[in-house]
Amino acid sequence: MKRIVVTLVGIGALAGVIGTTAPVSGQSDSQAAPIYGIKLPQGYRDWRLISVKQLTGKQLTGAGGELKQLRAELGNDLAIKAFREGTLPFPDGAIIAALHWNEESSDFDNQALAAGFPKLGLQSSFAGSAVNVQFMVKDSNKYAASGGWGFADFTNGKPGNEALHEKCFPCHVPAKDKDYVFTRYAPTP
Amino acid sequence: MKRIVVTLVGIGALAGVIGTTAPVSGQSDSQAAPIYGIKLPQGYRDWRLISVKQLTGKQLTGAGGELKQLRAELGNDLAIKAFREGTLPFPDGAIIAALHWNEESSDFDNQALAAGFPKLGLQSSFAGSAVNVQFMVKDSNKYAASGGWGFADFTNGKPGNEALHEKCFPCHVPAKDKDYVFTRYAPTP
Repeated sequence: MKRIVVTLVGIGALAGVIGTTAPVSGQSDSQAAPIYGIKLPQGYRDWRLISVKQLTGKQLTGAGGELKQLRAELGNDLAIKAFREGTLPFPDGAIIAALHWNEESSDFDNQALAAGFPKLGLQSSFAGSAVNVQFMVKDSNKYAASGGWGFADFTNGKPGNEALHEKCFPCHVPAKDKDYVFTRYAPTP
Repeated sequence: MKRIVVTLVGIGALAGVIGTTAPVSGQSDSQAAPIYGIKLPQGYRDWRLISVKQLTGKQLTGAGGELKQLRAELGNDLAIKAFREGTLPFPDGAIIAALHWNEESSDFDNQALAAGFPKLGLQSSFAGSAVNVQFMVKDSNKYAASGGWGFADFTNGKPGNEALHEKCFPCHVPAKDKDYVFTRYAPTP
């Protein structure tokens, strides 16, 4: 399978990001997600917001313990445009990023809420330590065998193993009618 | 008190936003937040992500019922730069937006999680219907009486009343050491 590099150029202080996807060779496998050959896109932390999520349950690693995460779904320009216009399937070049953090809380924050809004029992939590980041990269030719999407998962900048990446596409099959994307674009408050 | 208009120009498909703050007169009060005279900034939905939060408790309105919100904190370019560089106090012109949604869940999403990760009891929730959006606008001269920050709260594009806006600054006083800002910049996963 050919490998790809996703090159994203951040423009100074602007949030604008120009993305290109081009097949290359001779790159080290160790930086690319297995199966799909996707490298960590530069600048994704500055992409625009699609939506926000919470995930709770047991740890995905099977190591035990409770999982409680806050998550942000960000999109490159092609993805944001498609979400807003309701375009399905997503166009080639669209990339969706899912940033995952451990959900943490602060006594300091909650005491301030209690002082400001007594009797309401408000509790706040926020995105604490980083967990991982996942990507869906649309390329209808290259990834024809997985609904036109390539999948990638990185922890501390390093891709997960092949067994992990084999789980991505089957999990997204139930959302086939939405081009395999579960995420909804959050309305503007 | 002088009123201000926060003008933000989105540049085509780019996420870049250029903001200017200029005093004007002759505008209708009905569109500006009381006390601080802040109008709804255009383009804030495209600002870059600072962090993600959850808020739970009873309804803030006092109307009863449980509150469960997912929230995103976004910043204009000056705010993002200050967060990343740890600049305190924030520079004049920095604006922080807090977008609040009702937290909702979907059986469809949770069934897909259950199929993909049996035995982990995963539950997902997401930003559902819009609740309101709040802003902190830094202008150390104009808002000297409130720590250099102006506050604004909008629901469906309309500012809240004066009583609501009187609560903003006192609630932020405990965070004086962080220039009255509770939000922490989420690390890059």
